[in-house]
Amino acid sequence: MTVTAPAGFEAAGVAAGLKSTGKPDVAVVVNRGPLKVGAAVFTSNRAQANPIIWSKQAIQDGVVEAIVLNSGGANCFTGPFGFQTSHQTAEKAAELLGVSAGDVLVCSTGLIGTGDEVFRAKVLDGTTRAIAELSADGGHSASHAIMTTDTVAKTAVRQGDGWSIGGMAKGAGMLAPGLATMLVVLTTDAVLTAEEADAHLRAATGTTFDRLDSDGCMSTNDQVSLLVSGASGVVPDPVQFAAALAELCGELAEKLQRDAEGASHDITIRVTNAASVEDAVEVGRSVARNNLFKAAIFGNDANWGRVLAAIGTTKAAFDPYDVDVWMNGVRVCTAGGPDRPRDEVDLTPRATDLLIDLRAGAEAATILTNDLTHDYVHENSAYAS
Amino acid sequence: MTVTAPAGFEAAGVAAGLKSTGKPDVAVVVNRGPLKVGAAVFTSNRAQANPIIWSKQAIQDGVVEAIVLNSGGANCFTGPFGFQTSHQTAEKAAELLGVSAGDVLVCSTGLIGTGDEVFRAKVLDGTTRAIAELSADGGHSASHAIMTTDTVAKTAVRQGDGWSIGGMAKGAGMLAPGLATMLVVLTTDAVLTAEEADAHLRAATGTTFDRLDSDGCMSTNDQVSLLVSGASGVVPDPVQFAAALAELCGELAEKLQRDAEGASHDITIRVTNAASVEDAVEVGRSVARNNLFKAAIFGNDANWGRVLAAIGTTKAAFDPYDVDVWMNGVRVCTAGGPDRPRDEVDLTPRATDLLIDLRAGAEAATILTNDLTHDYVHENSAYAS
Repeated sequence: MTVTAPAGFEAAGVAAGLKSTGKPDVAVVVNRGPLKVGAAVFTSNRAQANPIIWSKQAIQDGVVEAIVLNSGGANCFTGPFGFQTSHQTAEKAAELLGVSAGDVLVCSTGLIGTGDEVFRAKVLDGTTRAIAELSADGGHSASHAIMTTDTVAKTAVRQGDGWSIGGMAKGAGMLAPGLATMLVVLTTDAVLTAEEADAHLRAATGTTFDRLDSDGCMSTNDQVSLLVSGASGVVPDPVQFAAALAELCGELAEKLQRDAEGASHDITIRVTNAASVEDAVEVGRSVARNNLFKAAIFGNDANWGRVLAAIGTTKAAFDPYDVDVWMNGVRVCTAGGPDRPRDEVDLTPRATDLLIDLRAGAEAATILTNDLTHDYVHENSAYAS
Repeated sequence: MTVTAPAGFEAAGVAAGLKSTGKPDVAVVVNRGPLKVGAAVFTSNRAQANPIIWSKQAIQDGVVEAIVLNSGGANCFTGPFGFQTSHQTAEKAAELLGVSAGDVLVCSTGLIGTGDEVFRAKVLDGTTRAIAELSADGGHSASHAIMTTDTVAKTAVRQGDGWSIGGMAKGAGMLAPGLATMLVVLTTDAVLTAEEADAHLRAATGTTFDRLDSDGCMSTNDQVSLLVSGASGVVPDPVQFAAALAELCGELAEKLQRDAEGASHDITIRVTNAASVEDAVEVGRSVARNNLFKAAIFGNDANWGRVLAAIGTTKAAFDPYDVDVWMNGVRVCTAGGPDRPRDEVDLTPRATDLLIDLRAGAEAATILTNDLTHDYVHENSAYAS
């Protein structure tokens, strides 16, 4: 049910010929209200795709009637023509839905530089056909139409006291910075103001999608949108709603991690006893982006030296000679020196746990990443995105 | 002849059993004077190996009599015992050479965490045997003893007016940050003061080794040392000497790039019309560290979108929609939009040229890097370092 699980939403996914495989590539999610509240967060990359530029304008007033998403082309660095394509996509949807174009968000994913006349015609045609097929159980087909290298559709649902949240995601990456274009649409029938929706969205993405760092590459097209219909008529308890949204975003983030391009290990990097959350995140991210560490994990090698070499590049508060490192429950490094032998660590399971104890404070953070594999190199050298 | 090309130097390389292959693994270079001037630059990683900690103390007075280098173990994160090993190595060399231990530099490369009793005994034994074999044409054997995953020994020589410079290097990386431990020893028989040697070394490494960024990973053991014998009796023209040293360092940096682990392309990233040199370096480095771009080059895909996505993450002054990108002489992107078709770019040669015109000023910088290949993943998942 995904994005159509909450009351007040319709969705559809259709094949418009953008993908050479003929698979579905245009999705539309419509908010039937009564509220038409929306919030969105975007890639922090300065190189921003046309749909990002469009959607940033459209979200200003906190009103969102619908969102149109396409795979098979990023419409990024395609000039004024490309921006007009995003604009025309919103106008086409608005015209067919009887709403204002300024209340329609647009998302695109695929090869940067793709956005010519043929692309535009297919996106507009797909938008028209998806809107004709809108249904209250269309969330499933929409979640398939946004896939690119994803091997499975990624959806999640949470139930509250009289309200619910639904979500779909594509990509294998993170938001700020991000990669491989992460697109996420979240829906809820809870009653929220635009300010509440925005605050909830930023809080939830800040500790979930923002801490998924599969390969450190930041996309030009990342966007996470929250659409609020209020159709349940229920004003949620804010703490409960925040927890449910964070949980749902966490589930989608893990699903993105588990489907990351070519990965053979899902690595959970837990940094504890940091002087600040920022320090913990910086330390975790430095490991998540270290190719030597990531290749070692692919090779089932508990190479803790590469962990220390990675965190030594950060400005975080800690003494490199007073750090403990655990891998899959085995303490391989104590106070910056060797502890248990590396071969005691069993790295054959896909789920990999790395614990870094900075002994510098009381804060913590968790970063999700993947290993660096032959398949990653293959997919990203053979697949143009 | 390498480091023994300039007058006043002797060197040797021996097999001490640190490498499981039985290949040479301990090298010594001795400065016979009359000057005993030295300068050195070190990794900026906060996680520093014991030989780095030792050498940083030893170089303080600008006097260097000898340098002992070993492969087969990094002696990093090996605690106080490991520091004593570096200290004892210097003392052993000093005793045999009749000099002060404080004037002996030490370098190590290999697996982090390696530095136990067996390691120490082998390093001390190797030091003793290398000193017994010192000769004025030992530069060749020394250059082999410092190799780890290097496939060829890397040496270079430059001649000035009555003086010369020699050098040897190992590794596949950069200095600050660096990777795969880059060790470089430079020698000259020119007459220089310690201050002059230090200034010349920093200037030359700043535009050569510092701009080689094979995989963005910073080593705990990187060290570049310059030993000055003054044996030519010639005070060099400073401009001529600076040019010769920069040229020699540039040659060694290119040799490191061409032998980078698993690489199939040597990528020269030239950033022009930047507002500052710092901006040009930041922009070049962001591309050099972008796995998606590097994988695309491995796949012979002129994916300029990944270049723009990479540079969009920087703080450098430029408008992403006013940038030109050339690959191997073909302008694939003009003013942030598509120009010539990507398939017009021939990426089959190993030498790859990427030109990024920021149109934001008059400064420029060149960064050297490599592609991300199956062999890189293989070497770094199978080889513990």
